[in-house]
Amino acid sequence: MSVTAPQGFRAAGVAAGIKSGGARDLAIVINDGPSRAAAGVFTRNRVKAAPVLWSAQVLSGGRVRAVVLNSGGANACTGPLGFQDTHATAEKTAEVLGDSAAEIAVCSTGLIGERLPMDALLAGIDTAAAQLSRDGGLAAADAIRTTDTVSKISFRRGEGGYMVGGMAKGAGMLAPALATMLCVITTDADVSAEDLDVVLRDATAVTFDRLDTDGCMSTNDTVLLLASGASGVRPDLAEFGKVVTAVCADLARQLLVDAEGATKAIAIEVVGAASERDAVTVGRAVARSNLLKCAIHGEDPNWGRVVSAVGTTDAAFEPERLNVAINGIWICRGGAAGDDRSKADLRPRDVTITVDLSAGSHSATVHTTDLTAAYVHENSAYSS
Amino acid sequence: MSVTAPQGFRAAGVAAGIKSGGARDLAIVINDGPSRAAAGVFTRNRVKAAPVLWSAQVLSGGRVRAVVLNSGGANACTGPLGFQDTHATAEKTAEVLGDSAAEIAVCSTGLIGERLPMDALLAGIDTAAAQLSRDGGLAAADAIRTTDTVSKISFRRGEGGYMVGGMAKGAGMLAPALATMLCVITTDADVSAEDLDVVLRDATAVTFDRLDTDGCMSTNDTVLLLASGASGVRPDLAEFGKVVTAVCADLARQLLVDAEGATKAIAIEVVGAASERDAVTVGRAVARSNLLKCAIHGEDPNWGRVVSAVGTTDAAFEPERLNVAINGIWICRGGAAGDDRSKADLRPRDVTITVDLSAGSHSATVHTTDLTAAYVHENSAYSS
Repeated sequence: MSVTAPQGFRAAGVAAGIKSGGARDLAIVINDGPSRAAAGVFTRNRVKAAPVLWSAQVLSGGRVRAVVLNSGGANACTGPLGFQDTHATAEKTAEVLGDSAAEIAVCSTGLIGERLPMDALLAGIDTAAAQLSRDGGLAAADAIRTTDTVSKISFRRGEGGYMVGGMAKGAGMLAPALATMLCVITTDADVSAEDLDVVLRDATAVTFDRLDTDGCMSTNDTVLLLASGASGVRPDLAEFGKVVTAVCADLARQLLVDAEGATKAIAIEVVGAASERDAVTVGRAVARSNLLKCAIHGEDPNWGRVVSAVGTTDAAFEPERLNVAINGIWICRGGAAGDDRSKADLRPRDVTITVDLSAGSHSATVHTTDLTAAYVHENSAYSS
Repeated sequence: MSVTAPQGFRAAGVAAGIKSGGARDLAIVINDGPSRAAAGVFTRNRVKAAPVLWSAQVLSGGRVRAVVLNSGGANACTGPLGFQDTHATAEKTAEVLGDSAAEIAVCSTGLIGERLPMDALLAGIDTAAAQLSRDGGLAAADAIRTTDTVSKISFRRGEGGYMVGGMAKGAGMLAPALATMLCVITTDADVSAEDLDVVLRDATAVTFDRLDTDGCMSTNDTVLLLASGASGVRPDLAEFGKVVTAVCADLARQLLVDAEGATKAIAIEVVGAASERDAVTVGRAVARSNLLKCAIHGEDPNWGRVVSAVGTTDAAFEPERLNVAINGIWICRGGAAGDDRSKADLRPRDVTITVDLSAGSHSATVHTTDLTAAYVHENSAYSS
């Protein structure tokens, strides 16, 4: 299923030898049409990996025949030769498919600053192309994993019978954990590239963009939406947007619970904000507090660390009107101690921190995880 | 020594019973004059503790007779009653000293959101006042510790024989570790409150403001500079500024090496910046990367995490002109791999990461620490 749930798509995932250890590390997703409409969103990091620079050019044309994805190397900060490697990857795939490299998107994930083993990668494209199938979605989702402990896939059926499917790896869009978030979403709905672009930007803004596991922004983040039109269904755009958003939200949730070292899935729910922007700003500030993330790891309802994070923002609020609930217990009321903090039960994996700014009627939720010794361990030993 | 190194100051530090366990938790520093000129800088967090709100009012008058400091409770987010507690602390001290509460500054540090045990605190003021002495600087520095493993003190002699002394606790000014940074600096130079204000702002801007151990901003941060004029020396302001800056830098260094759980003292030295602001922005972004801080903990010269942090800023730079050195080895040149990364020796406690933006002639250094399992442990178990 995953990206092959919609009609018109085939996929494969193979072990090309890019990673040491023999795990799958190369995936191809191909759109057999009849449409090739596509849209993409990319990292806002100013240091962009070669595949991001390449794929942004491809997507500016609004058409994608295939996506080639590799784990085992980010191909970021690799200079002009790294860009040539991405170009060669697209050319090779185009050659195998008998198509144009200008419609081949490329995604990479792994360590920054090292060239990819191109002999292995190009040979892997031959292998993967030979295995492309309607059943290949799971293997493709497996091949893009780095520190992900499980594959992330999702699909939903829309009104009229069209499908939306997706796969993802990593944790976070604007602020992912280690390495990179990559996501490919497919649909057999018949939607123009322009409409796909609007739908994808709206969907990512309220899903991946509100996932903030460690405040770091990758050089490689890419989310692609490809439409084959094979179902013949032309969906209502609002309804289509809801389905795509649901798939993105499902994948975002899977990224969150698999984030490195995490033992808690924390939702920072900001209400009573003067604007949605204020709500997101506050949610992100709270989600980035290492002190709070440690406290939640220790199951300590330390609302002072919530309030002090809120105070670093420029959002509209008065300190003496702030209310904070942890898992439904309003332990801070009017900027001071409220209900008995011992009533806040932090034992469940899911933790909801509600911040009421008492400044308006807007709201937003940002998702993060706790900060653990396992996160430190995993990220102390990545490249060495 | 510490705050009692300059003439005209007495101090005391006592165990008032605010902390459980019987450690010192209350300090008084008193300026016997003849001058009482003083200046202060405070946290920029919009959620300010009661003692910060109080002391900012006191300092607006430019005169301080005494500073009362307690550990064991931050008196932040404690509402109007918490502010009354601070007021009562100042009133009690004024009464004991036979002076005006309007010239008594108050500082608190500890857990947010809980009222202080005022009976113990007020009784402690009597005890401390009875012990005020020219030898009390060390006991005062000891009494303001929370998770600090050692007292932080410093002093320097200026031209003409005047002295500057200081004590501090915590880690960081704008972005301190747990709880709070408090710092009291004293001098027997004869300097007006207006000049003290300029000197203190300049000194903190290049010292405490460039210490960023975990990106969190406290509700209580306070740095006070008190001048007794007792030496009779009216220093050249530029020279006086250098001496005060040296004391601040020394205390900042002591805070850094004692930061919670830290095993590395990391200097992020940004050169080739188009402006000092750009240099500080880049230094702070790199200093706040959890991924980088984990890598340095693991002695892994992962320059990709440096470059990706630089890419999140709005500083002037071109990705293909970025150079990064770790402990003097330029392992990233022109935005790609440079010298052999295995040559970067990360075993020493002190680590210097140099980022060359190749965009101008300005520079700045931001100091941080590594992120360790010990940090997580300490901050998972603070209030519970």
